[in-house]
Amino acid sequence: MYDLRNFSLFSSSILLGRTMAPPTRIGLAGLAVMGQNLALNIAEKGFPISVYNRTTSKVDETVERAKQEGDLPLFGFHDPESFVQSIQKPRVIIMLVKAGAPVDQTIKTLSAYMEKGDCIIDGGNEWYENTERREKEMSGLGLLYLGMGVSGGEEGARNGPSLMPGGSFEAYKYIEDILLKVAAQVSDSGPCVTYIGKGGSGNFVKMVHNGIEYGDMQLIAEAYDVLKSVGKLSNEELQSVFSEWNRGELLSFLIEITADIFGIKDDKGEGYLVDKVLDKTGMKGTGKWTVQQAADLSIAAPTIAASLDSRFLSGLKEERVEAAKVFKSGGFGDVLTDQTVDKAKLIDDVRQALYASKICSYAQGMNLIHAKSIEKGWDLKLGELARIWKGGCIIRAIFLDRIKKAYDRNPDLANLLVDPEFAKEIIDRQFAWRRVVCLAINSGISTPGMSSSLAYFDTYRRERVPANLVQAQRDYFGAHTYERVDMEGSFHTEWFKIAKQLKN
Amino acid sequence: MYDLRNFSLFSSSILLGRTMAPPTRIGLAGLAVMGQNLALNIAEKGFPISVYNRTTSKVDETVERAKQEGDLPLFGFHDPESFVQSIQKPRVIIMLVKAGAPVDQTIKTLSAYMEKGDCIIDGGNEWYENTERREKEMSGLGLLYLGMGVSGGEEGARNGPSLMPGGSFEAYKYIEDILLKVAAQVSDSGPCVTYIGKGGSGNFVKMVHNGIEYGDMQLIAEAYDVLKSVGKLSNEELQSVFSEWNRGELLSFLIEITADIFGIKDDKGEGYLVDKVLDKTGMKGTGKWTVQQAADLSIAAPTIAASLDSRFLSGLKEERVEAAKVFKSGGFGDVLTDQTVDKAKLIDDVRQALYASKICSYAQGMNLIHAKSIEKGWDLKLGELARIWKGGCIIRAIFLDRIKKAYDRNPDLANLLVDPEFAKEIIDRQFAWRRVVCLAINSGISTPGMSSSLAYFDTYRRERVPANLVQAQRDYFGAHTYERVDMEGSFHTEWFKIAKQLKN
Repeated sequence: MYDLRNFSLFSSSILLGRTMAPPTRIGLAGLAVMGQNLALNIAEKGFPISVYNRTTSKVDETVERAKQEGDLPLFGFHDPESFVQSIQKPRVIIMLVKAGAPVDQTIKTLSAYMEKGDCIIDGGNEWYENTERREKEMSGLGLLYLGMGVSGGEEGARNGPSLMPGGSFEAYKYIEDILLKVAAQVSDSGPCVTYIGKGGSGNFVKMVHNGIEYGDMQLIAEAYDVLKSVGKLSNEELQSVFSEWNRGELLSFLIEITADIFGIKDDKGEGYLVDKVLDKTGMKGTGKWTVQQAADLSIAAPTIAASLDSRFLSGLKEERVEAAKVFKSGGFGDVLTDQTVDKAKLIDDVRQALYASKICSYAQGMNLIHAKSIEKGWDLKLGELARIWKGGCIIRAIFLDRIKKAYDRNPDLANLLVDPEFAKEIIDRQFAWRRVVCLAINSGISTPGMSSSLAYFDTYRRERVPANLVQAQRDYFGAHTYERVDMEGSFHTEWFKIAKQLKN
Repeated sequence: MYDLRNFSLFSSSILLGRTMAPPTRIGLAGLAVMGQNLALNIAEKGFPISVYNRTTSKVDETVERAKQEGDLPLFGFHDPESFVQSIQKPRVIIMLVKAGAPVDQTIKTLSAYMEKGDCIIDGGNEWYENTERREKEMSGLGLLYLGMGVSGGEEGARNGPSLMPGGSFEAYKYIEDILLKVAAQVSDSGPCVTYIGKGGSGNFVKMVHNGIEYGDMQLIAEAYDVLKSVGKLSNEELQSVFSEWNRGELLSFLIEITADIFGIKDDKGEGYLVDKVLDKTGMKGTGKWTVQQAADLSIAAPTIAASLDSRFLSGLKEERVEAAKVFKSGGFGDVLTDQTVDKAKLIDDVRQALYASKICSYAQGMNLIHAKSIEKGWDLKLGELARIWKGGCIIRAIFLDRIKKAYDRNPDLANLLVDPEFAKEIIDRQFAWRRVVCLAINSGISTPGMSSSLAYFDTYRRERVPANLVQAQRDYFGAHTYERVDMEGSFHTEWFKIAKQLKN
């Protein structure tokens, strides 16, 4: 173990460029909350790490934390040159800075001191095409590049995140030993890390992970809304419902923290804190990208889109307040109509609706990854992704093991919905699911995530949908042609002429 | 009137570069179905027009049509140079070629012969940023540029489309006289054309028009599905229902052609043609762009997104056939449960649900245009857009007059839903709307457009949505902070620590 009491001496000598310190195994640049915690995690796993941040106070803060959290082998540097030079060759540096221009800036700063065969890893939520552009640019300098999704928030970064590294396989192999130890460990399926694939695949998979996370959060919010607004459950009851759910098929990080949230009292007034939180949701871009990519790849992802739209609409608080006034005269109170419900039955129905909707949401996310994998030739393994999401990340859940198994059974599964196990689960839950959505509709409570999931299911499982009419319309006004159910070929009909003749 | 019998002589002399023909008023390049029809329309309105197409047989075909449709003053050219030189200065040439690279190619070909002050107009469904790029490039050559949305399909182009020109105002003014005559004429509100705004605004508005068109078509398809699958209406009954609807508040081109479609018998077998059309819908990109732009601008557009997703899912015909087999064992027949319905009541409910959903869909489209207008400083007039959509285009409808009036009443309307007239219409229809969606859900018929419209309405009109929970979750795992309902500021709570303490 390195003696951190010596560290400050080393540090200053490094700053002067006359270091005698042994090289560290890896470096990390960007010491905001995620970077700091990931650096401490790496150090704690026994890998001496150099850290750097443009604002140097963050360096000192991290060094101080390393000291306090067990004299961890973490070395701080105030200038990029000595930071880079302190790392053993070939050097690997993880960046955790804001996506976009700051990443380019950091690469510029660091690469000036790096040598052929060294590697930069971007651990941020970067747009995958930026990673691919940078990988090419780095390659021109003889440097390797990885775009690595890191999920788990502050706590995950510190104690074991889910890691999604994509890009140079050579670079991945070089730090695989570190990643395997740093990642969350799941008892029956190993460390939550795998080499995702080439190019920007690590970022892409992390992006979809976040989209799925949006979906999960929205579905939970809708369950909460129905239970609270229609079922009139108190926060105490909600806490106990979610705690109970967290012991069954819904067991997951997000359900667990939801239960926690309902138990926390307001520290600034009466009652519970959750009731004081403004109903306005922020967002950072990955959900938006997921929806845009789904559209680009012709993948229906309505549950994820509904969660994004709900965030947008939540942001229009002032408009909603005004709209509520306009519609008050239409008989809308907090709920449209008070319906008598059997609480126990409602809770059970909502649990089933939440679970069935969740299957649809994950099906959409997996389909999106699959479509991109084909487009880019990434050869992504969906079951392996489900495996590394079982721990560490925000969407970690027992449910992911079922997804992994579905893909183990059939790696070419067209859609999670038609996996025999999931199909059976949906069939068992469908009536509860339909009841909840209808109850919400009749109460004037919107459940966009659950209802769009249900519509997704009811469309996907139907042999014949009314798209024949749409296609007939397109051929009518735009001569776009159509196919027939009973013969091969492309057809066009002069609908207008025939209709005109029929009218005469 | 030009004598077209002389035309062929002129034409050949022009080809040799020794023209004695008087210059024409305008040129049109790209003679596929839209280009041909628009050129004939312009010629018919008394503006001598030169036409050109790379594949010269299309030129001859158009010239032949001009002859047959009344010796119209239309002049064909087989080479770009004489085509350009045949037009009076400053020259204006409308291109109607495939969006993307073909537009760049055509510009290159034509601009070689054009002079300072001349103008090119792109009449295709182009991505607005391409138009802005080209406008800049043209400006470097001293040429003016317009991106002009043209809606109405083949028939509209020939007899009066809705025109959405954006870009150089100077260029617009120069051909305004032509556009005012060529556009569809609506008796109480004039020609369906207006100068949209700067840059790519014409293309952007046309793109959203198409997104709204997707929504309209999807909502009609859902109405059809419910009436047919649940109400068991025959094609004859459907034809009479849609004909009836076309005499009331739903009066529109799309409802009219829908009625027509149900009346047309299969020319290749027994029964009606609509039943033989494969339930797979094609698309061309503008719907996708609309959804992606909505995400980009933080505008919820779930109805339009649902129509896009429905097209995607319709395309998975083979997967749907397989999925239907998997779920057959779960008790799913063509409909999940046969419900006894009062046909007349159902028809009336569906009409109301369709209308209410349509309001939501247009609200989304208008909000999207508004948000873009602010972002780009285009200063678009929403009421004026509704006015030019009243005739000529695919979404033309009596309904658009109501939208125009809503913006006349209040140009700064936050959302169509809160316009007093629309609000009242929704309130009057809301129970029918809720009944239809629930009936569909309980029948296993998906109505993604109607249900997402309803969820949109029920979210927008609600003062308090469950986004407080989502924001609490984000603060819990990502320290994203939250606002409070009762005091100003940004707050962060150590949810995990408090919950841990409570558990101990």
